[in-house]
Amino acid sequence: MDAEFMENLIFKAEALIEALPYMQLFSGKYFVVKYGGQAMVSDEMMATVVADIVLLKHIGIKPVLVHGGGKEVNEMMRRLGKEPRFVGGLRVTDDETMEIVEMVLLGKVNRHIVALLNRCGARAVGLSGGDAGLFQARVKPFSPGGSSGKDVDLGRVGEINWVDISLIETLSENDYIPVVSSIGADSSWESLNINADHAAGELAGALQAEKLIILTDVEGIYQRTEKGTRFISAIKEKEIRTLIRDGQINGGMIPKVEACLRALEQGVARTHIIDGRRKHALILEIFTDAGIGTMVTL
Amino acid sequence: MDAEFMENLIFKAEALIEALPYMQLFSGKYFVVKYGGQAMVSDEMMATVVADIVLLKHIGIKPVLVHGGGKEVNEMMRRLGKEPRFVGGLRVTDDETMEIVEMVLLGKVNRHIVALLNRCGARAVGLSGGDAGLFQARVKPFSPGGSSGKDVDLGRVGEINWVDISLIETLSENDYIPVVSSIGADSSWESLNINADHAAGELAGALQAEKLIILTDVEGIYQRTEKGTRFISAIKEKEIRTLIRDGQINGGMIPKVEACLRALEQGVARTHIIDGRRKHALILEIFTDAGIGTMVTL
Amino acid sequence: MDAEFMENLIFKAEALIEALPYMQLFSGKYFVVKYGGQAMVSDEMMATVVADIVLLKHIGIKPVLVHGGGKEVNEMMRRLGKEPRFVGGLRVTDDETMEIVEMVLLGKVNRHIVALLNRCGARAVGLSGGDAGLFQARVKPFSPGGSSGKDVDLGRVGEINWVDISLIETLSENDYIPVVSSIGADSSWESLNINADHAAGELAGALQAEKLIILTDVEGIYQRTEKGTRFISAIKEKEIRTLIRDGQINGGMIPKVEACLRALEQGVARTHIIDGRRKHALILEIFTDAGIGTMVTL
Amino acid sequence: MDAEFMENLIFKAEALIEALPYMQLFSGKYFVVKYGGQAMVSDEMMATVVADIVLLKHIGIKPVLVHGGGKEVNEMMRRLGKEPRFVGGLRVTDDETMEIVEMVLLGKVNRHIVALLNRCGARAVGLSGGDAGLFQARVKPFSPGGSSGKDVDLGRVGEINWVDISLIETLSENDYIPVVSSIGADSSWESLNINADHAAGELAGALQAEKLIILTDVEGIYQRTEKGTRFISAIKEKEIRTLIRDGQINGGMIPKVEACLRALEQGVARTHIIDGRRKHALILEIFTDAGIGTMVTL
Amino acid sequence: MDAEFMENLIFKAEALIEALPYMQLFSGKYFVVKYGGQAMVSDEMMATVVADIVLLKHIGIKPVLVHGGGKEVNEMMRRLGKEPRFVGGLRVTDDETMEIVEMVLLGKVNRHIVALLNRCGARAVGLSGGDAGLFQARVKPFSPGGSSGKDVDLGRVGEINWVDISLIETLSENDYIPVVSSIGADSSWESLNINADHAAGELAGALQAEKLIILTDVEGIYQRTEKGTRFISAIKEKEIRTLIRDGQINGGMIPKVEACLRALEQGVARTHIIDGRRKHALILEIFTDAGIGTMVTL
Amino acid sequence: MDAEFMENLIFKAEALIEALPYMQLFSGKYFVVKYGGQAMVSDEMMATVVADIVLLKHIGIKPVLVHGGGKEVNEMMRRLGKEPRFVGGLRVTDDETMEIVEMVLLGKVNRHIVALLNRCGARAVGLSGGDAGLFQARVKPFSPGGSSGKDVDLGRVGEINWVDISLIETLSENDYIPVVSSIGADSSWESLNINADHAAGELAGALQAEKLIILTDVEGIYQRTEKGTRFISAIKEKEIRTLIRDGQINGGMIPKVEACLRALEQGVARTHIIDGRRKHALILEIFTDAGIGTMVTL
Repeated sequence: MDAEFMENLIFKAEALIEALPYMQLFSGKYFVVKYGGQAMVSDEMMATVVADIVLLKHIGIKPVLVHGGGKEVNEMMRRLGKEPRFVGGLRVTDDETMEIVEMVLLGKVNRHIVALLNRCGARAVGLSGGDAGLFQARVKPFSPGGSSGKDVDLGRVGEINWVDISLIETLSENDYIPVVSSIGADSSWESLNINADHAAGELAGALQAEKLIILTDVEGIYQRTEKGTRFISAIKEKEIRTLIRDGQINGGMIPKVEACLRALEQGVARTHIIDGRRKHALILEIFTDAGIGTMVTL
Repeated sequence: MDAEFMENLIFKAEALIEALPYMQLFSGKYFVVKYGGQAMVSDEMMATVVADIVLLKHIGIKPVLVHGGGKEVNEMMRRLGKEPRFVGGLRVTDDETMEIVEMVLLGKVNRHIVALLNRCGARAVGLSGGDAGLFQARVKPFSPGGSSGKDVDLGRVGEINWVDISLIETLSENDYIPVVSSIGADSSWESLNINADHAAGELAGALQAEKLIILTDVEGIYQRTEKGTRFISAIKEKEIRTLIRDGQINGGMIPKVEACLRALEQGVARTHIIDGRRKHALILEIFTDAGIGTMVTL
Repeated sequence: MDAEFMENLIFKAEALIEALPYMQLFSGKYFVVKYGGQAMVSDEMMATVVADIVLLKHIGIKPVLVHGGGKEVNEMMRRLGKEPRFVGGLRVTDDETMEIVEMVLLGKVNRHIVALLNRCGARAVGLSGGDAGLFQARVKPFSPGGSSGKDVDLGRVGEINWVDISLIETLSENDYIPVVSSIGADSSWESLNINADHAAGELAGALQAEKLIILTDVEGIYQRTEKGTRFISAIKEKEIRTLIRDGQINGGMIPKVEACLRALEQGVARTHIIDGRRKHALILEIFTDAGIGTMVTL
Repeated sequence: MDAEFMENLIFKAEALIEALPYMQLFSGKYFVVKYGGQAMVSDEMMATVVADIVLLKHIGIKPVLVHGGGKEVNEMMRRLGKEPRFVGGLRVTDDETMEIVEMVLLGKVNRHIVALLNRCGARAVGLSGGDAGLFQARVKPFSPGGSSGKDVDLGRVGEINWVDISLIETLSENDYIPVVSSIGADSSWESLNINADHAAGELAGALQAEKLIILTDVEGIYQRTEKGTRFISAIKEKEIRTLIRDGQINGGMIPKVEACLRALEQGVARTHIIDGRRKHALILEIFTDAGIGTMVTL
Repeated sequence: MDAEFMENLIFKAEALIEALPYMQLFSGKYFVVKYGGQAMVSDEMMATVVADIVLLKHIGIKPVLVHGGGKEVNEMMRRLGKEPRFVGGLRVTDDETMEIVEMVLLGKVNRHIVALLNRCGARAVGLSGGDAGLFQARVKPFSPGGSSGKDVDLGRVGEINWVDISLIETLSENDYIPVVSSIGADSSWESLNINADHAAGELAGALQAEKLIILTDVEGIYQRTEKGTRFISAIKEKEIRTLIRDGQINGGMIPKVEACLRALEQGVARTHIIDGRRKHALILEIFTDAGIGTMVTL
Repeated sequence: MDAEFMENLIFKAEALIEALPYMQLFSGKYFVVKYGGQAMVSDEMMATVVADIVLLKHIGIKPVLVHGGGKEVNEMMRRLGKEPRFVGGLRVTDDETMEIVEMVLLGKVNRHIVALLNRCGARAVGLSGGDAGLFQARVKPFSPGGSSGKDVDLGRVGEINWVDISLIETLSENDYIPVVSSIGADSSWESLNINADHAAGELAGALQAEKLIILTDVEGIYQRTEKGTRFISAIKEKEIRTLIRDGQINGGMIPKVEACLRALEQGVARTHIIDGRRKHALILEIFTDAGIGTMVTL
């Protein structure tokens, strides 16, 4: 064993030791991780995200994943000759579309994540929010606002009104990692299409999670000022409201900050929006004081 | 309350009481039910099957469902412009087909069964055999036999070599009803297409189930004799071998009897092939001495 | 299997399925059943009552039986040359009578019920309220009222002032069915003769039972009106007080309604007085929306 | 506090300390105590026996009592105008006699012992061997031998063929003291009259008890020799056979030694026949090296 | 067995029975016993104290021992050439002294007590208050008062500000007897010298113990009156304050009464200062109504 | 966050991920670590050893420490005017020496390690092998061999003949880290001086530990060959015997290899002798494929 190799090893050992206080802090706590869509850019990137999650499990944290899969749904719709349609950022979801959403999310995206986790030695279990009353939802009322003022029928787009965490608890306490597709069930157990960020926020809140971490494909929240664009590493509710009003937070970032605020209201300690394309983003966020991405607090 | 109404009620009460000895006999035991495909003929029929299963749960039995969905897979393949192809009764499963199988089974058939169960007040959870090492499988070697003698590459068609029952146990003991799609995972956690009858047989064996019940769309096994066709209500392994050799058991019935024999070998007490289109077929089988369908024993 | 036989079976299966919502509703709850005396008319009738109770056990309900046995006590007293004597409906219980009460209730009536239950496959255990502090009682003060105004010494007639449910809980949670004779123990652990209806009411209250069901030998409560006699299927406390004042509720029905009211005050959800001579009276009451007999509520 | 009082106290404290090694030895073990009949001579004597048993409970031993009550049965039979009849030491038990046996044992003798125990602060529960399959018995075949050679129908006299200890275990582990009447149930759950010594021996064997202690009204076993009568403090199976053959062990002592041998065969460590009329006989036996009475070993 | 020997045995049996009500009263409760120093006068005396404690364990009480060892520390200091120094009754504890305190208490006094207990058949475990956060302490601020008014640096003398009882609970519930040296740990886990009486008082309070018993080398508290010296068998807080003011309670008795009051404030039921040189002092205190020593109450 | 800092972080994250397979492999297993003496060279070095052990705990391993402390004992003996004496590498241990050994090991070395662990956020508990029957030992028979042939009385030097692991299990399962001084108790619970390497080997064997790791102050085992000195990274029993015979393994290394062999014989999977002066030696050994030091196998 030459000296350089040894030094390298020692450097690595120190990395483990540095993580110790965080292990002690977070042991036994739930971490809800929103993953999917834009953050799932390449198999290589996904492999590091997934390894990070398995690591969390092994040091005593209880990770739970929530995912959507808009891009994959669009693709399958087009293969089946249907053009995706959106109003106000929400997918118009007729019954046939709902069927496609369910097949793509549960049969493809969810399985992909589960297989990656299992390949890392985890015991992952794929779930739908429709399993055993997990995401109890209703059709989301929708007024797009604007001058027209006409209500738009988005079809089977839903919002969660109750989360039954007992299935997640049963699985987490038995050392499984639950991976949940953002699908809900209405009161007659018909499926509803739920925004995955919102689903993650509600689940984190219901679990009284220690952290909600939303992995996405930007570094976090930016603010345009006179001096140029500034990265925001920590932001509070009030500033978020201002930035939304000013249109600086917009598009897909809006459900993300809404999910953070919803989780925080229900008692989640910390919420983060971070860049899932960055190698080991989760570990960097969790095991360093500095953290990465944007932390959202009340 | 008039007399006739009352008499009717009393008659029903007696039906409950008659079921008592069977409740006592089967309490706490696993029943594996193969459902799906041909047996899922109409929503009305499915409602009675599902209600029967929820009843089993409530009187202390632990039901576990396994399903396939060949017809639905064919349909979706055609919608996506792929013609289903079979060799020796087995679906040729290239990678794209495997993806479709997974989407249809997990995103459609499984969800349909789960929703029906939940609508009956159960707490059903949909699973893939790829979850947490449930169905550990390998590519099935296949020689079609015959004069050609050439091996056929069926692609991702698999057979189970190990069942990890811990996930099923965790869920059953916490009062959930597991509904498992007949998909396995190979040693690199890639999905394999498993025959649903075989999957049910292996799972019943691994769980040391009390019963394996295969619901199908015929009454059971028939035998052609000189005097005409005779229904067989109980059959042993040896006779099965003879009937297979004679071609009297053929086609889709072959994996069913194989599943029964495989389960019996591993210690399952009784196996049954019954007609799922018959109203309350499960209850009739379980709660009457006569039983219905064909019982297969060693 | 001919068609008629089959149809009959299906009809029975449907009876089981109809009971499903009630099973879901009552699972894990205590049902206290007052049985004995007048309701125990024939072995055949007793067999159906007992089968009903065993059925309750098997679908997850926790039944507890309480019984008296006035008629059998009278008979034994006469065989031993003692004439039973009653004041205001209460048995004058000298020490020798108390000994006879205990022998008859514990050694005869209780054993009869326990044997019937065990014969049905249950694991029944006979108890006295004097076991392990179950019914802690005191001598009941008694002023018969009327012009004479003299206090009457009823001897060892008692009323319960504390129920220690831990023995019932231990047995019920271990799947035994407790059968309790209506005998209490005073503070020096001497036995007291307790009215069995009252004992059932107190036990139901202490257990926070879902239901108290008093089986008797009339259909329920009747009211005489100008138009003739009317059966009352549901009655509230206030009306009961009126009917007692008018003498329409009298005799042995008084302790029954008192027991119901006492149980209701302590939080029992529903109480019923039903005709134990009717076949499967318990199942009819529990598993039909209509119910039978008279339901007493606050 | 004067010196003499103090010295007395210290002497008592030393008695407690001397018992320590026995407490350590017997902690968590079952002790089956046959009590009743001749040993129950006076309330004062019974009070010391019962206090001893409650003490055993408090130092970690699990006492279980078994009792008969021949004398009390005879008395009640006579009061009811029936003359008790015995053949070969066994009570001829017609159906009416069986009913009397059950009433006297369960309603009188059992309750007396339970009340005494509860008065000492124990939580005693009276049981019949007919509860929940505790003593599963059959009619005892009986040939009295002798010249006549005719079989005698003893009626409902039984012998135990299976003991289901689960009820005793449930109660003992929840800190109750079970008090069991020597009544069994045949396969149709009809009661049978069991010899109480035999019942105690079978129960001790089934429980793998540490000790079987039979309390009686003689000091133990005596042997007549040429030099006079000799008390035997320890005896082995072989000698017992000899003494029975010689008629030196006879009458009521025979079932006692049989019970000891039967318990020993099934693995009970030690069995003792001791004089229940002696004050604190149980404690003297258990907490002194010398012991009292006759110890029977294989 | 001669009559006198027998009578003696019966007398002893009665001593056991007399203790029964106390066993019932104290079963499952914590008793904290301060032992050590002056009370540990001879091996013979220690043997009786230790046997008493093992007896408590065997009858269901949970004893916990706390000890100091001033005399042994002084001795070792002198052997190492250091003269012990005290201010206001407190040992001046420089770092080297602290090291000696720790060696003597943990390596000598604690081990002596543990060995004696184990020799009696107990499973004793020696602990430091520094183990797993048991005694969390801080340096005790100290102003000796008087004319000089100068603060004195006592070095590593501490007082407890938090007791983490989880280690004691884990051990007690697993049938071990914890023996704790009166050493605490400050917030950087450096050891502090804690007064053993105070440590016992704080531990009793934190455990919500039934009793705190301080064994010492005087009979209890005395009061000088005009008529001579009077032994006080029960005293209340107010009188204690008076006796301290009058100088009648002084020296080593002060921390003892302080410990009693501190325990009482936190909910301990009774506290006692008794003479550990008296044979079986603990048993006499616990198992007699009269008790011995001085009982301190609020 | 600049790029270099980020890269550094990512490098560290990768170190954590690389450890993942080892975490999965060792989760829930016991690791016995012999520490102390020569390996405890500086506070800085000790801090890294201790942090490594706390890390093991946090990733699901159950570490148990065993320590001696020869150097510290020598020092204290000299301070007390006693010259340490050794025969055949074993300390001559008269009673006074034994007392010093106990004070130094339990009161000094053990406390030092416990405090270091607690400072790292662990819940460490110091134990003696004399606690609750942990190390049951006997005086070691000793013949130094050689020409003289005379037996030498080494005094209180012992060897373990039974390890009672229940205390270690209780503590480990409740998340404490046990730190055990190498002291045993003979059958009269007198202390014996046990070689710490041997103690660690016996404990590892009794616990069926996954690994025994002996930390020392050399890199491992070396072999002198004609070509010079060669470091041995893996060695088997047979070679060890040869090297001992050749005198190449000698002195303090002999008990270390003996301990390894003894542990292996009892089923320990792997044993290692590694250099405790090397920073993070434990982590390097456990979390790298190469490992460090010498691995001893059967």
